Amino acid sequence: MSLNTDVLQARFERLRSNKLFELLVISIILVSALLIGAKSYTLPPLVNQLVLVLDWGITLFFLVEISIRFLGESEKRRFFHSGWNVFDTLIVVVSLIPIEDSELALVGRLVRIFRVLRMVSIIPELRILLSSLMAALPQLGYVMLMMFIIFYIYAAVGTTFFESVNPELWGDISISLLTLFRIMTFEDWTDVMYETMVSYPLSWVYYLSFIFLSAFAFLNMIIGIVVNVLEEEHQRQARADAKAAGEPTLIDLQSEIRDLRVLLKERLPEREQSVA
Amino acid sequence: MSLNTDVLQARFERLRSNKLFELLVISIILVSALLIGAKSYTLPPLVNQLVLVLDWGITLFFLVEISIRFLGESEKRRFFHSGWNVFDTLIVVVSLIPIEDSELALVGRLVRIFRVLRMVSIIPELRILLSSLMAALPQLGYVMLMMFIIFYIYAAVGTTFFESVNPELWGDISISLLTLFRIMTFEDWTDVMYETMVSYPLSWVYYLSFIFLSAFAFLNMIIGIVVNVLEEEHQRQARADAKAAGEPTLIDLQSEIRDLRVLLKERLPEREQSVA
Amino acid sequence: MSLNTDVLQARFERLRSNKLFELLVISIILVSALLIGAKSYTLPPLVNQLVLVLDWGITLFFLVEISIRFLGESEKRRFFHSGWNVFDTLIVVVSLIPIEDSELALVGRLVRIFRVLRMVSIIPELRILLSSLMAALPQLGYVMLMMFIIFYIYAAVGTTFFESVNPELWGDISISLLTLFRIMTFEDWTDVMYETMVSYPLSWVYYLSFIFLSAFAFLNMIIGIVVNVLEEEHQRQARADAKAAGEPTLIDLQSEIRDLRVLLKERLPEREQSVA
Amino acid sequence: MSLNTDVLQARFERLRSNKLFELLVISIILVSALLIGAKSYTLPPLVNQLVLVLDWGITLFFLVEISIRFLGESEKRRFFHSGWNVFDTLIVVVSLIPIEDSELALVGRLVRIFRVLRMVSIIPELRILLSSLMAALPQLGYVMLMMFIIFYIYAAVGTTFFESVNPELWGDISISLLTLFRIMTFEDWTDVMYETMVSYPLSWVYYLSFIFLSAFAFLNMIIGIVVNVLEEEHQRQARADAKAAGEPTLIDLQSEIRDLRVLLKERLPEREQSVA
Repeated sequence: MSLNTDVLQARFERLRSNKLFELLVISIILVSALLIGAKSYTLPPLVNQLVLVLDWGITLFFLVEISIRFLGESEKRRFFHSGWNVFDTLIVVVSLIPIEDSELALVGRLVRIFRVLRMVSIIPELRILLSSLMAALPQLGYVMLMMFIIFYIYAAVGTTFFESVNPELWGDISISLLTLFRIMTFEDWTDVMYETMVSYPLSWVYYLSFIFLSAFAFLNMIIGIVVNVLEEEHQRQARADAKAAGEPTLIDLQSEIRDLRVLLKERLPEREQSVA
Repeated sequence: MSLNTDVLQARFERLRSNKLFELLVISIILVSALLIGAKSYTLPPLVNQLVLVLDWGITLFFLVEISIRFLGESEKRRFFHSGWNVFDTLIVVVSLIPIEDSELALVGRLVRIFRVLRMVSIIPELRILLSSLMAALPQLGYVMLMMFIIFYIYAAVGTTFFESVNPELWGDISISLLTLFRIMTFEDWTDVMYETMVSYPLSWVYYLSFIFLSAFAFLNMIIGIVVNVLEEEHQRQARADAKAAGEPTLIDLQSEIRDLRVLLKERLPEREQSVA
Repeated sequence: MSLNTDVLQARFERLRSNKLFELLVISIILVSALLIGAKSYTLPPLVNQLVLVLDWGITLFFLVEISIRFLGESEKRRFFHSGWNVFDTLIVVVSLIPIEDSELALVGRLVRIFRVLRMVSIIPELRILLSSLMAALPQLGYVMLMMFIIFYIYAAVGTTFFESVNPELWGDISISLLTLFRIMTFEDWTDVMYETMVSYPLSWVYYLSFIFLSAFAFLNMIIGIVVNVLEEEHQRQARADAKAAGEPTLIDLQSEIRDLRVLLKERLPEREQSVA
Repeated sequence: MSLNTDVLQARFERLRSNKLFELLVISIILVSALLIGAKSYTLPPLVNQLVLVLDWGITLFFLVEISIRFLGESEKRRFFHSGWNVFDTLIVVVSLIPIEDSELALVGRLVRIFRVLRMVSIIPELRILLSSLMAALPQLGYVMLMMFIIFYIYAAVGTTFFESVNPELWGDISISLLTLFRIMTFEDWTDVMYETMVSYPLSWVYYLSFIFLSAFAFLNMIIGIVVNVLEEEHQRQARADAKAAGEPTLIDLQSEIRDLRVLLKERLPEREQSVA
């Protein structure tokens, strides 16, 4: 029996790392994505039935696929250490729950949408891309904190002064934060400004200083990312250069040492000659 | 007779690579572009007649020009291996078809517009520019796939929730994708948001997270291109440096001087000993 | 007595540089920021009372904190040399003034908002970030002057021609400057243009040339910052490389080996000659 | 007499290169800029009179200043070889023409506005900045040509299809070009799109492809500039490095040659000893 599972596991492990199997999973995900898109159109009842059948087929396939990947894993515990495996399992399990209630139906639809994210968990390049994006975030922490401080102070000042002018834009601190984000994207920001300039003719100072400060902080964030990326690139290059450039100097040293040996060999027979 | 064609072909080949001929072709293309522009204005009938005559003249010229280029090509088969030659031939052939039907008239007008693209096929620098642009695209493939996944998931979620609010913006998945593209360009995005915030007060989370994610992915794409370009630049520079580099020649000098020293050391004591 | 203050000061100094104390101060600032946000909502009277009590608590805490930092400073005069200490003291002192008058109440609220800025004075990383931002500004001086000249000339021309069209947008030079800033952010700039194109059909030249010039100058500013940052990075790297660089030590090795060789050459023949 | 002019010219030459004189000219330009701004407000008649007097004063000062600079030039012909000198002279000469006619009055006002540009001709750093900007332009020529081809083709297609939908936006090729520029700046581009999508439901392809193409070409232009700037920076750095790095290798060579000399000196007395 134990041998039997071992044989099966080896077979699953081979299947799991098979390129064709990966391609099949990707195309099934694509079909499932298309189904989600299709459902947003009003379809004839027959097609609707087909969509439902296909949907169940995909759920079943995903169940089989995750089982294969789980059985193909030699250490079962390590399987759930990967966040992506947990994510995949959750998506499959929730898809299996039969939904009739309208509330839960919504959850079911959302789960089907998030299946598209499984693309990221299947294609290694996307997983690398995502993790490199995530890795860049914490380094920007302080710039983002600075930006939040700028936003918060301006929102507090804006609420204090402009609440009476237009409570829909400056009613409380969270609404003001949203309004400020809108101003940062330059979306109809002059309408907001002209409205408050009726009561406070100098309020353009508030808007312009905010735009300059936030643009400046934003610019800094981008430059921070670019410098980071270029630095990593530079270090990678430097390491590659060090590998390629270290050899000639070593050869230099070798030749130098060989020269010494030649000299020594020349001198040693000379002593003998002088003895002779 | 065979000699005659050879002579003609040599003459055509010379003409084809003539700089003045190239300039003439470029100016004819410019005139054809201006004609397209002129046709968009309401012109007096006499000018209209002139435009028509000029248009036929240009079509004839292009026919002659492509014939010269074809005859100037020593291997006739290779002529159609270049996509640009195929494009040029197609433009000329379609221009020759007499058009009376209003449906085909449109095609005729479009073909005349695309003649301007012949500028790219004539000027080598533009062709190089275009092909270098094309070469940069596939490297961005995964970032673009990631971006499409973000768009697709948000479009599916948007259609699920906001279809009842405004079917013109969130009616089905393709309309939602267009609306999301609009939001990414910040074009009246707050109008879209405020509309859905009436029914879903927390929907700002949807919009803000989308803007952050897409801006972040977009930023990554740009940084990817910049790093790519700089890396290529760096490698080109490194190759140029390696060719012109003074360091290896200095090492050569060093080794040469060392050879000299070894020679001196060998010759001087040996001669003395031989004297002794 | 003098001994007593010395002991106390040492204790305060230890407290001041304590990480836990710093964390406590940061969380108190966060609470004070949240209180400012809370006050922007309409709250039940009981909560309002609590907010008032908390506010006084924070003011008292800040008073104690700044006293500790002041007493912890060994040289009292140097305390006020730091702009941040002066800023902190001002915030605390103004918070202490009892406010009843509605005019002063506003000042009191603003002071409470600017307390959030104390975050920057407490967290060293933010202070470094801010000072590095400030350091980048003067280097951009000439580009900003150039940009102002562009803005001023266009504003003067705009006022001269378009004042009669729409005095609300082009009434005087300062209003025109604001309108031009709006155009630079692309905020409904076509509405402004179409309005003046009724009277001056060629005024699109004015808008397009302005957009190109300002975008070009802006681009130059950004490139200036990026080049600046990369150059500093490069120099920092070069300095770090120079410290860690293997090349000079390799040269050292070479010279050492050469010394050895010289020694060998000197000793070997000399000994033989002396033997002879 | 000749001596007298020589003395005067030397004095003028000294005055011309005087830093204080430069500062005076700059402040006079600033006053003239402020006057232009002041004139855009409705002022009391007395201030208006003062402004007029000041204006004449500035014109006179500029006349004197340009005369000094002209007389301070040792070779009179070379004076008008500099474009800035010609510009300065023109501004002064046109300011001198007495204006009464309302048509010419406008020219007079414009000339007074362009006086601000003299700032660029006076401050050397701004002149360098401008000439470096100008130097960057021709290198972008091909990208700009490519961009114009994209714009022209889309404008021609747009006019062909959308003229019937909205002649105000797509009436002829020049109006279409303006509309496309508006779309590139994302200014209410969806309004333009939704309007044509009523008649041509697939016209979103036109807009999206245009946005992608123009954004891509624009991005390329920016990257082109950045790479250009960084390359120049790199070369400047490399030249600086070559200066700073050449010394140690020369010292190396020197020490190597000195070693040779030491060796030769050692060997030469040996020969003498052997003779003895």
